[in-house]
Amino acid sequence: MKKLLDSINGPADLKRLSVEELPLLASEIRELIIDTVSDKGGHLASSLGAVEIAIALQYTLSAPDDKIIWDVGHQAYAHKILTGRRDGFKTLRQSGGVSGFPKPSESDFDAFIAGHSSTSISAALGMAAARDLEGKKNAVVAVIGDGSLTAGLAFEGLNQAGHLKKNLIVVLNDNEMSISKNVGALSQFLSRKLTGRFATNLKKDIETFIKSIPRVGNRLLALARKAEDSIITLLTPGMLFEGLGFHYIGPIDGHDVAALVAVFKDVEALEGPVLLHVLTTKGKGYLPAEEDPASFHGVGPFVKATGKPKAPSKLSYTNVFSTALLELADKDRRVVAITAAMPEGTGLAKFAERFPERFFDVGIAEQHALTFAAGLAKEGFVPVTAIYSTFLQRAYDQVFHDVCLQNLPVVIAIDRAGIVGQDGPTHHGLFDISFLRHIPNMIVAAPKDASELRHMLYSAVQYNRPVAIRYPRGVCIGVDTAGPMKFIPPGQAEVLKDGNDAVILSIGTMLSPALVAAASLEKAGIKTSVVNCRFAKPLDADLILKVASSAGCVVTVEENALQGGFGAAVLELLEEHGVQVPLKRVGVADEFIEHGGQDELRSKAGLDAPSIEAAVKSLVALNRKKKTAF
Amino acid sequence: MKKLLDSINGPADLKRLSVEELPLLASEIRELIIDTVSDKGGHLASSLGAVEIAIALQYTLSAPDDKIIWDVGHQAYAHKILTGRRDGFKTLRQSGGVSGFPKPSESDFDAFIAGHSSTSISAALGMAAARDLEGKKNAVVAVIGDGSLTAGLAFEGLNQAGHLKKNLIVVLNDNEMSISKNVGALSQFLSRKLTGRFATNLKKDIETFIKSIPRVGNRLLALARKAEDSIITLLTPGMLFEGLGFHYIGPIDGHDVAALVAVFKDVEALEGPVLLHVLTTKGKGYLPAEEDPASFHGVGPFVKATGKPKAPSKLSYTNVFSTALLELADKDRRVVAITAAMPEGTGLAKFAERFPERFFDVGIAEQHALTFAAGLAKEGFVPVTAIYSTFLQRAYDQVFHDVCLQNLPVVIAIDRAGIVGQDGPTHHGLFDISFLRHIPNMIVAAPKDASELRHMLYSAVQYNRPVAIRYPRGVCIGVDTAGPMKFIPPGQAEVLKDGNDAVILSIGTMLSPALVAAASLEKAGIKTSVVNCRFAKPLDADLILKVASSAGCVVTVEENALQGGFGAAVLELLEEHGVQVPLKRVGVADEFIEHGGQDELRSKAGLDAPSIEAAVKSLVALNRKKKTAF
Repeated sequence: MKKLLDSINGPADLKRLSVEELPLLASEIRELIIDTVSDKGGHLASSLGAVEIAIALQYTLSAPDDKIIWDVGHQAYAHKILTGRRDGFKTLRQSGGVSGFPKPSESDFDAFIAGHSSTSISAALGMAAARDLEGKKNAVVAVIGDGSLTAGLAFEGLNQAGHLKKNLIVVLNDNEMSISKNVGALSQFLSRKLTGRFATNLKKDIETFIKSIPRVGNRLLALARKAEDSIITLLTPGMLFEGLGFHYIGPIDGHDVAALVAVFKDVEALEGPVLLHVLTTKGKGYLPAEEDPASFHGVGPFVKATGKPKAPSKLSYTNVFSTALLELADKDRRVVAITAAMPEGTGLAKFAERFPERFFDVGIAEQHALTFAAGLAKEGFVPVTAIYSTFLQRAYDQVFHDVCLQNLPVVIAIDRAGIVGQDGPTHHGLFDISFLRHIPNMIVAAPKDASELRHMLYSAVQYNRPVAIRYPRGVCIGVDTAGPMKFIPPGQAEVLKDGNDAVILSIGTMLSPALVAAASLEKAGIKTSVVNCRFAKPLDADLILKVASSAGCVVTVEENALQGGFGAAVLELLEEHGVQVPLKRVGVADEFIEHGGQDELRSKAGLDAPSIEAAVKSLVALNRKKKTAF
Repeated sequence: MKKLLDSINGPADLKRLSVEELPLLASEIRELIIDTVSDKGGHLASSLGAVEIAIALQYTLSAPDDKIIWDVGHQAYAHKILTGRRDGFKTLRQSGGVSGFPKPSESDFDAFIAGHSSTSISAALGMAAARDLEGKKNAVVAVIGDGSLTAGLAFEGLNQAGHLKKNLIVVLNDNEMSISKNVGALSQFLSRKLTGRFATNLKKDIETFIKSIPRVGNRLLALARKAEDSIITLLTPGMLFEGLGFHYIGPIDGHDVAALVAVFKDVEALEGPVLLHVLTTKGKGYLPAEEDPASFHGVGPFVKATGKPKAPSKLSYTNVFSTALLELADKDRRVVAITAAMPEGTGLAKFAERFPERFFDVGIAEQHALTFAAGLAKEGFVPVTAIYSTFLQRAYDQVFHDVCLQNLPVVIAIDRAGIVGQDGPTHHGLFDISFLRHIPNMIVAAPKDASELRHMLYSAVQYNRPVAIRYPRGVCIGVDTAGPMKFIPPGQAEVLKDGNDAVILSIGTMLSPALVAAASLEKAGIKTSVVNCRFAKPLDADLILKVASSAGCVVTVEENALQGGFGAAVLELLEEHGVQVPLKRVGVADEFIEHGGQDELRSKAGLDAPSIEAAVKSLVALNRKKKTAF
């Protein structure tokens, strides 16, 4: 049977449908989303929750002239399907395919990039200011989840929007979740919901009541009239937003597409900033996701009928971190744990269960996470703050000002460091060595494998200094996690292989391809030392200077930007000591890396054994040529 | 006559005074502050506004066991004077003297570092969490200005504090100012003030009213009772904080020290988070500062009797930027300007006057400033965002995610780059090259002098790319600002002096000492090329490779951290091209730099002509030795 969706190649086609047809379209879109994500993986639950919002927006507005900015962006699958990417959607998150996030370079309908949370209001306000300067009349809409509202950036945007009074619509997609169950006072506050009907009845009651009072002082009557609306507002989440200068409308059932269409039409006519409070169910329309939305936030391929993963999950670095931290916390009561809204993603959920008093989920609030950690550290605790590399970027100033300036023992467990794969450029963790290494007092480490992650975590809580340990997304290697944890002094490297022709200085899990390269080079008659440097800061200066001088040429290897990264640190070290040897850095070039398979992207970026081998060979050839020349 | 203050060597002495004596003490403290700041310069207006708060806190609490965290910290002079630093206060901001900001390494009474705004609530909450884990009972107090409350970090802290319900006192020091006049919806909201007396009367009126109603439905009566407190709250700023889970008390006259003492005693006994709203006057007790608090926020030495600066102000880089931007904006309507609460400090006040529609003060909200700028840029404008280097740190993620990932033409005018002097380690701008250079698409420039700043600004608005231009605090050189602005292509360096023995690659205003060094070297028989590189990214690869090879040794010079900075960029370039020449980097070593005179600190850090000269000499000696060896 022909589907409604088959005829939708863009918003113009959508507008030809009657409002009555939209619920059927919504269910067809859900089916496409579930089919695609069960096959390719992706962000399921949020996108299922926002199908009707996406339909109603495109139905009532005139995008791309009207600007729709999707916060975080993983809610935007329906938006993509409706705006010319229905067929392309099958390539979701695949190399060269449709991105999992809004991306202006992919479509004009994606008004602004998203991937990090809580940017939409600020971006929308900038676009509204531009519109007014141009004398245009288009609508600007930000769609933001209640979880994203926790981040200070969203508050900063609201605060200026309420002040500037520009026409701007903020759709608050409230599902009581960020990725996991939402936290924070704001969230508790939003949950004080009155249904629209109750609010209306209440208002009528109050009106009747006021009219029924026979005689009353003028001052009090005026007060009562003024208070009428205020009471309604006060008892609803509207209070907060009205206080910030927004006109508050809601709450509205976010799965009643006809109601949404009606409201969006009304709202467009209003002057000034409007906050539209829409209630949705995360995972709507797919039972396993409705029942366990946190697990279906971001998922790998799964069996549609059951919701079970297609592939059995293998031990990840996150798992190893999770278990190691429990072991440490058992023995050391100073160890506490902090997450910014990602207890599952960072592996801290078990810690939360075992040590609820010592666990803090601060919500999507990375800045606060680090300053809060600094407060705990100042008073003698060792807070382990687990955070994805790309999201730690938001706390750069707090790492600098609150942690490192005071030289406090905060341990930052940087998960998803390096190339993350399908989530693409907004999510790769390729810069943490570069943005942390220049901060005084900081220690920056990266384990070669799972066992070393355990030892590093054990060591880090004893350093009494700021420490960051970075480890990648995905399945781990080197799982020998039964033995006792070992202390590694800050900076200490280890030589894993000796050779006189060249030395490979590796950091983190790039050691594995480095060893493969060295073995292959050996066969080709090139004897290569391999050093597991472990630390980007401090470096094991003595060892590195020694091996660099004796091998006569150096290749550095890292899964990080080449600019200011580990290889740059080695260059700086050699310069400081006046040591000149031919050197080549293997790492990520100065450009953003698109989405795709993790290993595929690594190979493309030259982060593999063949690239390391080629780098060594070119240097050795150069050295041999020089020797011949003498 | 002996003063009360003479006997105050710490809080214990303070507690011996009667409450009646405290106002006299307050005026003595003000006198000391005004005398010292008129002599040495400093943050006058904020500290004058918080004298009674500081007295009342030390009078009622038991610091340092009770933790007092001063936000931003430039309000804390009275706190310093009361906690054992009365005599030392004369050395305020001088090298080796008392720091202008709270500093735990200076005194245990300084519970947490401050310098960047809006960190106090998060830090206090961390300390409160630590206290509870330890089973201790001490008070934790954050003192935060209404300006600092604009920043998202403060909101993130409030949000979790209202959720965790720990005992925590937030003193909101509300003077309706950040540095300049405060902006934002929150600020408008806070200014809806009711005096305590009016609120009490209103409450009584409502009680009488409810009691006077003869018969009324139960439901409505219950509602009215419940609404009673709510109405009061609604009409005061309390609404917002109650909504976030705080117990709101206020507003209180922040210069009535007896009232403050009474309230602090009461508040200590309350459970859960409390927000104490205190109204103060910025600059209180010194008329010129009360009348123009923005100018007396941070000041140089001034004549006490008149408030006029002791030294006539000389043309600064900020002034040159200010004028150049006006000139550009006159010709190009796409140019708009953004500041984060610093129209005066960044020189944008004139722009605000001339182009009010194109000027945006977003409040203390650096993150929002950059994302808002990205929104404007996405729609065709060229937003020039003027911001101090150290405060740009807070927008690192927004520069990355919202500006650079979309390759948008946002121009970041980085003021106060390099060593800023008396404000010390929280304020030096020594890391911007390192934290910007590794972001793809970014252009990072630094002018050699005032004229070049004009040319760079003119060029930057034409690049159609993200650009940062960094320039230092203070008096400018090279003032030849009458001519037309010139276009400089991205990366283009210029050779200022030729020589065959060595080359100095300089960026920014370090060119001046570099030229001095070269002249001195010339006299010593060492012929040195000097290149004004202008850009840390992109580098002028061809030129640098050529001069490096021909001169045979290279010294790089920058007023930035050596880790990942401009010199590191040159090392990387040489590595990429397999060019090996002896190289030395002159810049700031891997440690925080204390406060003191700007030039004094530069010399200490090796950022001067003698250090550059020494670096060149050591390399040339090495080269000559090598040649002799052949």
